[in-house]
Amino acid sequence: MWRITWCLLLLAATCWQRSYTKESENPPSPGHVSVVIVGGTGDLAKKYLWQGFFHLYSTQVGKGYTFSFYGGGLSPDDKGTLLLFEILKKLKCPSELTAERCALVKEQFLRLSQYLQLKTVEDYEKLSQQIQQQLKQEGMVEAGRLFYMSVPAFAYADIAAKINSTCRPPADAWLRVVLEKPFGHDFGSAQLLATQLASFLKEEEMFRIDHYLGKEVVSQILAFRKNNNNLLEPIWNKHHIERIEIVLKETLDCKGRIQFYDQYGVIRDVLQNHLTEVLTLLTMSVPANLSSSEEVLKNKLQIFSTLEHLERKSVVTGQYQSYNEEVQEELNKTKDYISLTPTFAGVIIFADNPQYDGIPIFMTSGKMLDERVAYARILFKSDIFCVQDYDSVNCKPKQIVFYLGHGVLEYPAILVSKNLFKPSLVNSGWKEVTEHKDVNVLGLPLSDYFIQTPVVPKEAYYELISKVFHGRKDSFISTENLLASWAFWTPLLDSLVRAYPRPYPGGVANGDLLNFQLRGREVAFVNEAVVNVIQQGQEENFQVMQGKYRGVDMVSAWATELVERLASDLQSAAEEAIRDEGQFHLALSGGSSPIALFLQLALHQYTFPWHHTHLWLADERCVPPTETGSNFRMIHDQLLQHVRIPYFNIHPMPVLLNQRLCVEEDGGAVLYENEINQLVNASSFHYILLGVGEDGHTASLFQDSKLDESAERLVTLTESPSKPHQRMSLTFTAINKARKVGVLAMGRRKHELVTQLSRIKGESARYPITKVQPTNGNLIWYLDYDALLG
Amino acid sequence: MWRITWCLLLLAATCWQRSYTKESENPPSPGHVSVVIVGGTGDLAKKYLWQGFFHLYSTQVGKGYTFSFYGGGLSPDDKGTLLLFEILKKLKCPSELTAERCALVKEQFLRLSQYLQLKTVEDYEKLSQQIQQQLKQEGMVEAGRLFYMSVPAFAYADIAAKINSTCRPPADAWLRVVLEKPFGHDFGSAQLLATQLASFLKEEEMFRIDHYLGKEVVSQILAFRKNNNNLLEPIWNKHHIERIEIVLKETLDCKGRIQFYDQYGVIRDVLQNHLTEVLTLLTMSVPANLSSSEEVLKNKLQIFSTLEHLERKSVVTGQYQSYNEEVQEELNKTKDYISLTPTFAGVIIFADNPQYDGIPIFMTSGKMLDERVAYARILFKSDIFCVQDYDSVNCKPKQIVFYLGHGVLEYPAILVSKNLFKPSLVNSGWKEVTEHKDVNVLGLPLSDYFIQTPVVPKEAYYELISKVFHGRKDSFISTENLLASWAFWTPLLDSLVRAYPRPYPGGVANGDLLNFQLRGREVAFVNEAVVNVIQQGQEENFQVMQGKYRGVDMVSAWATELVERLASDLQSAAEEAIRDEGQFHLALSGGSSPIALFLQLALHQYTFPWHHTHLWLADERCVPPTETGSNFRMIHDQLLQHVRIPYFNIHPMPVLLNQRLCVEEDGGAVLYENEINQLVNASSFHYILLGVGEDGHTASLFQDSKLDESAERLVTLTESPSKPHQRMSLTFTAINKARKVGVLAMGRRKHELVTQLSRIKGESARYPITKVQPTNGNLIWYLDYDALLG
Repeated sequence: MWRITWCLLLLAATCWQRSYTKESENPPSPGHVSVVIVGGTGDLAKKYLWQGFFHLYSTQVGKGYTFSFYGGGLSPDDKGTLLLFEILKKLKCPSELTAERCALVKEQFLRLSQYLQLKTVEDYEKLSQQIQQQLKQEGMVEAGRLFYMSVPAFAYADIAAKINSTCRPPADAWLRVVLEKPFGHDFGSAQLLATQLASFLKEEEMFRIDHYLGKEVVSQILAFRKNNNNLLEPIWNKHHIERIEIVLKETLDCKGRIQFYDQYGVIRDVLQNHLTEVLTLLTMSVPANLSSSEEVLKNKLQIFSTLEHLERKSVVTGQYQSYNEEVQEELNKTKDYISLTPTFAGVIIFADNPQYDGIPIFMTSGKMLDERVAYARILFKSDIFCVQDYDSVNCKPKQIVFYLGHGVLEYPAILVSKNLFKPSLVNSGWKEVTEHKDVNVLGLPLSDYFIQTPVVPKEAYYELISKVFHGRKDSFISTENLLASWAFWTPLLDSLVRAYPRPYPGGVANGDLLNFQLRGREVAFVNEAVVNVIQQGQEENFQVMQGKYRGVDMVSAWATELVERLASDLQSAAEEAIRDEGQFHLALSGGSSPIALFLQLALHQYTFPWHHTHLWLADERCVPPTETGSNFRMIHDQLLQHVRIPYFNIHPMPVLLNQRLCVEEDGGAVLYENEINQLVNASSFHYILLGVGEDGHTASLFQDSKLDESAERLVTLTESPSKPHQRMSLTFTAINKARKVGVLAMGRRKHELVTQLSRIKGESARYPITKVQPTNGNLIWYLDYDALLG
Repeated sequence: MWRITWCLLLLAATCWQRSYTKESENPPSPGHVSVVIVGGTGDLAKKYLWQGFFHLYSTQVGKGYTFSFYGGGLSPDDKGTLLLFEILKKLKCPSELTAERCALVKEQFLRLSQYLQLKTVEDYEKLSQQIQQQLKQEGMVEAGRLFYMSVPAFAYADIAAKINSTCRPPADAWLRVVLEKPFGHDFGSAQLLATQLASFLKEEEMFRIDHYLGKEVVSQILAFRKNNNNLLEPIWNKHHIERIEIVLKETLDCKGRIQFYDQYGVIRDVLQNHLTEVLTLLTMSVPANLSSSEEVLKNKLQIFSTLEHLERKSVVTGQYQSYNEEVQEELNKTKDYISLTPTFAGVIIFADNPQYDGIPIFMTSGKMLDERVAYARILFKSDIFCVQDYDSVNCKPKQIVFYLGHGVLEYPAILVSKNLFKPSLVNSGWKEVTEHKDVNVLGLPLSDYFIQTPVVPKEAYYELISKVFHGRKDSFISTENLLASWAFWTPLLDSLVRAYPRPYPGGVANGDLLNFQLRGREVAFVNEAVVNVIQQGQEENFQVMQGKYRGVDMVSAWATELVERLASDLQSAAEEAIRDEGQFHLALSGGSSPIALFLQLALHQYTFPWHHTHLWLADERCVPPTETGSNFRMIHDQLLQHVRIPYFNIHPMPVLLNQRLCVEEDGGAVLYENEINQLVNASSFHYILLGVGEDGHTASLFQDSKLDESAERLVTLTESPSKPHQRMSLTFTAINKARKVGVLAMGRRKHELVTQLSRIKGESARYPITKVQPTNGNLIWYLDYDALLG
C-alpha cells in the first residue's frame, strides 16, 4: 500500500518506467538499483559523482530501494580499490543528516560500494554476472542499472557497445547511461556520435549531462515562469523586453586544460551547451505540464527552429594574451605557433517569431575577465516617464535576474526588481531573502529587488544524479536538442576558423576592450581604434563611381555600396512619382542579385513610401506562386513580408489560372496587361528593375523568344532554355515605355558578359538586354566592381 | 548693385515678395516700412515687442530701409503718448552696440515712433493717410506695412477687417499681420477664426506667432538635424530611438491668470502649440532646402497626418491642490464650485509611419512642479553590452537633448552624449561649451556631452520680429498647421471634459504622484493606490460569464473582456488546427463589432500564428475592394496591415471581375467556391466568425434571400435591403460545414433581437441567423452585457 503512495508522490515519469506498476495491483518492493561509475576513480568522480551518489543514497535509504555501487576503471582491482577507498572515506555528510545518522549511512554506503576493473568486454560480463548473482542470492527484484560514463568522449561508443552486449538488465528493469560532454565538436561529429550511440542505446536510456541544468537557479527557470505566468505572460514579449543577457564570466585562465580547451574554445565549451540551455529555458513556451518530460523537451526543441542563423558578424571573439604561450607550452609547439582559439566570445542572437522578434539576446563568456559571475538578465523596456522623484524605484530599470552564483551577490538567487511584481516562491525549498548587503546587482541596489534563494544550497551533480534516478529526461540533453544546438552553432564556428580573436590582457586591465555593440543584426567591438584605421583605408576604395556604359549612365561600386545607392535612387524615384501622381509603379524581376536590394529596402530604408507604391513583376516562372522557385514568392518572402504595403498594391503575375500554369487559352498575359492598362498611367511604369543573365537575357526575354508577333503586347508567355522553361514576362514594348529602367548586374560571373556588351553598339539579336532602350525614359546600369572589372 | 547682393544675402523668401526685384535690373532703395503695434501700450508690447522692434531697427538702420513705428491703442492720443514714452525711454541697448552708437540709434528710434488711437475704422483710415502722406512728403517708396496685434484674440477679426478695408499698402508693397495665440480653443473655433481672418487677409499676410519657434534651441532643431544628417539619418528611426520626451515643467501657479487659464488648461496652453511645434520639428522630414519656407511648412504639415489619434487613455491629467481656490477667488465662484481644468498633463503620442512607428513620444507639462525646465530628449536604444568597465561613457545612455533653458544647466543648449558623435555647430552664432559645471543633465554628467550654445543669447520675440521682417513664414504657424494641430488635440480635449484631474500638492511634495507609465498604447499614473480600489471593485462586475443561449454555448461579459475572450478562443482554435493540420482557415465578416476584435488581435495578441492562418471572407459588399465600404478593406486596414500574414493566405471575395461588380456571368461566387474547395479541407472552415444584424441577418444572408436554389452552393450572390444592395456571401451550407462558428453581437441596439431570439426555438424564416446550425461543428454566441441584458 505504501508503495502506491510513494509512486504518487514521485513524479509520474518515474512510475511509468516500471511496467509492474501497471501489471500488479499490489506491487512488489521497488527493487534493486546497480550504479556503475565508469571512470570511477577519475577527477570528476572524485570531486562530484561519489558525493552525489552518496547524497542520493542517503535520501533513498530505507525507502524501499536497495543499491549497490561500482566504481569501474582501467586500473587493476587492487590499485583501484585503494584509490576508491581514498575517495569514499572523504565523503561529506549531506546537511540534512545528523552526524550519527550520517556515520551509519556512510558505513552502509561504503559496504555497498566496490571497485571493479572495467576494460574488456569480459570485465563488463563479469560485472553483469556479479549483479545477477547478488540479486539471486539476496532474492531481490532488479529495478535498474545506472551507468555513469565519466570517461573521455572518444570511449563512449565502445563502452556503450559493451554495456549493450553484456550489461542489459532484464526487460522489466531500466537501463540508464549517463554521458558527460563533449558530445561532438560540431554538427557532423555530434551526429556521428549520436548515430553510434543509437546503435547501442535507446533514446530513453541516454542521459546527457549538462551540469547547468542541475544548477539551482537554472533548474527553476521554468517553474518561475510558470508560477508567475499571469504576471509574466503580458510582458514576456518583444513589446516589453528590451534585451536578454546570458553571461558567464570567469577569472581563471586555461592553464592545465589547454589539451582539451584549444580544440574547443569558449563557444564549444560553454555557449553551445550551458548558455544555450539557459537561452532555451528563457524563451521556450512554458509547458502546460512541467512534470511532462516529453512536453518540456518538445517545447525546448521548438525554440531552436525560430533562432535566426548566426553569421560571421553575429559574434566578436577575443583571446587573452598569455593564452598562446600556454598553448605553445602545453602542446609542445614552437614559438611561432599561433592558436586562433577564442577564449572570449560575445554573440548576438535573435529569435524570428512573433513573441521575441527583434529582442537582442546578448550571450557572452570569457576566461580571464574581471570577475567570476554567471547570470541571465531580462531587462524590460522603460515605460515610465518620471516627472519628479527620479530616485523612486519606479524610475529605475525593470528587470528579472537569474543569478547563478558568485559575483557580488555570492549566492544563487532569482531577483525581480520591485517595480515589476512580487514573485511567488518557485518551490518550498526556496526562501525569500529579506536582509540585503549594501551592493548593487546589475544597476540596482539589492533593496530594490525581491530576492529568492534555495534554503539549502544543492550541488548540481547531486541534483542531476537524483534526476537520473527519477528518470526526469527533461533535465538532460536529448539527441534532437543536442543536434539542434549544434546545427545552430556550427555555421558560426565554421565561419570563425580563420578569424583572429582580439587579444586582451586579462582581468581589470581589459578595461572596455571587450565591450561590444549591436549594429543592426550584427555586433562589433565598441572600441575600434585599430579597426577604424583599416576601414578608413578601405573607404576610399569604396567610393561610388559614376560614368557611362553603352552610351548611357552607369553607377558602379562594391556590391554593398551599389545596392545602397540603387535603393536610394529607387526611393527618390518613388518620392518624385508620388509627389507628382500620388503613386509609384515599380516592376521587379526575380533572380538572386535583387535579394540584397530587398534586404536593404526592408531593413534599412524605413522611409520608403510603400503605402503609395504598387509592386509589379517584370517576369515570372510558371510555377505556383507559393513555391520557392517563384519570383513572386522570393519577393514576397524577402521584401513584402517586411514592409507595410497595402494588399491592393501587390500585383503578382497570374501564372496560375484554372488550376493550371501558363496556358495560353487562360489568358493570364492578357489579364496582366489589362491590369497594367487600368492602373498604370499610359502603361508606363515609373521604374522597372531588371537583371541580366550570363547569356544576355533580361526579364524572361531570351535570345530565341519570338517577340515580334507580340510587338504591341505588354505581357507575353516565353520559353526559357533553362528550367522551368515556361515563363511570363513583360515585353520590350512594356519595358521601353517605362520612365526609368535600372539594370542590376553583380558578381564576377557577369564580368564576361558586361565586357562583351561594352563592345557592342546598339542592338544585338544575341543579347536581348540590348533591346532595352526606353523610348522616353532613362536607362541606367548598376554594375558592381566584380561585374565591371572582373 | 548692392541691392542685388543684399537680396542674395537675404533669403529668397523675402525677395520674391517684392515684385520689382523681377521687373527691374537696377532696383530702387528697398523702401519704407511702417510698423504698427496694435495694443502698443499693453503688457506684451511693454515687455517684449518694443524692445524687439528697437533691436530690429538697430540692425537695419543705415542698410537702406527706412522705418516709422506706431503704437496703437484704445486710449486717447495724449494719454497713450505718455504711456508709450514711458515704455520707449526704458528700452535696453542690444549687446552688439556701443553705448554711444546705442544712444544715437535710440534717439532716432524715439523720433520715428508715435502713439495713435486705433479704435474706429476712421482711426485706421487716419493711420493709412498719415503713412501715405509721410511717404509722399519724403519721396519714399513703400516697402510694406507690419501690423502686430497685441490684443485679445476676440478682437482679431474686427481689426483685420479694418486693416483690410483701410490700411492696405499699394500692390507692390507687402502687408504682414502678426497674431498672438490663442488661435481658438478647439478645432471648430480655430477654423471659424481662420475663416474670418481669411476673408480679410491672405495666407501669406498672416504671421501667427508661437514664441517657442523663436527660442534659440527650437529654431535650430532643423538646422541641427540637417547639419548632422549623415550621422543622424541612420539612427533617427524606430530601430534606434527608444523614446522621445518633450517636457515643459513650471514651478509657478496660475494666480492672476485664472480668467484666461481656467478656460484653456495646460493642454491648450502649451501642449497644443509649443510642445507640438517641437514635436513636429523633431519628427518631420528634414527639408532638402531649409531656406524654403514652403518646403519646411509642407513637411511639417505632413507629420500631422501620421500621428495616431489620441484617446481618453492617451493622457493623464492633474491639478494642483490650491488651483480650485484660486478659481473660486478670481472667478468669483462659490466654495462648492469645482474646476476640472488640468494644470498638469502627460500624454503619449505615436506616429504611425515606418520611420517612427512604435516610438513612444512622452509629452508633458505642468504648473507647480519641482523645477522650471524645458527640453526635448531623444533617448536612443542601448545597443552596447558592457563586459567590463561599466563607467565608460559607452556604457551610459545615448541621447540628444535640446535644452531650452533654465533647469540645472541654466542656459539654452544642444547636448549630444559623447557616445553618439560630435555634432557640427548649427551656425556661426553658436559655440561649443568646454567648461562644465559639476551637474547631471538627464542622467549624464555634463562632461559626457558635447554641448553647444548660442554665443549671444537672443530674445525669442526679437528673433520672430526679425523673421516677420524677413518674411520667413516657416517660423510661424500656417493656417493648415494650426488646424492640423487642433484636429489632433480636439478629440482628446473633448474626451476630458468630464475627467477628474488627479490633485497634487505642488513642488517637491508631489513626489512620484505624477509619474506616469506606458501601458500598451495608453498611459496611467504609476502610483495608482486610489484608482486600484475602484478597479478592483469593478473587476468583479467584469467577470466573463459562461452559459447557454438558444441551447448552445454562450460567453458574455463587458465588451472589452468579451473581445479579449473571443480573441483568445480564436487563438486556441488556430493553434489546435495548426497542430493537427498545419493551417488554420478563418472566415471573417464585416461590420463594426469585429473592429475591436481586430485591434485586440493586431495589437495585443502577438503570438497569434498568422503565418499559418488563411483568411477568408464570410461576406462582401459589391463595391471595389479598395473602397472604404468594402468588408475586405476594413479587415485589411484594421488587421492585415498590422500582422505578418503571407500574401497567399489572404482570400478576398472576387466581387470585382472584368471591371464590373458582382455580375452573375462573371462567376465570382463560383471562383470563390472553387478556391475554398481547393484549399480548405472538406470545405470545412476551422472557424467562421459571424455578426448578426438587428433584423436577424448574418453574413449577407437576409430574410428574403432566395437561398434554397443554391442549397448545394458554398458561395452566392444576395440582395441586401440596405445599401449597397448587392452582396456576395457564404451560404448556410458553407457556414454549417464549419468546425466552429462564433456569433458576435455587441451593444444595446442588439438587445431587442437577442431577447427575441432567446424566445424562439429552432429555425425561424424571419431571422436568418437561426439557420446557423453547424452539422458537425460547434456554435458559440459571444454577447456583451449590453446586448444580453440591455
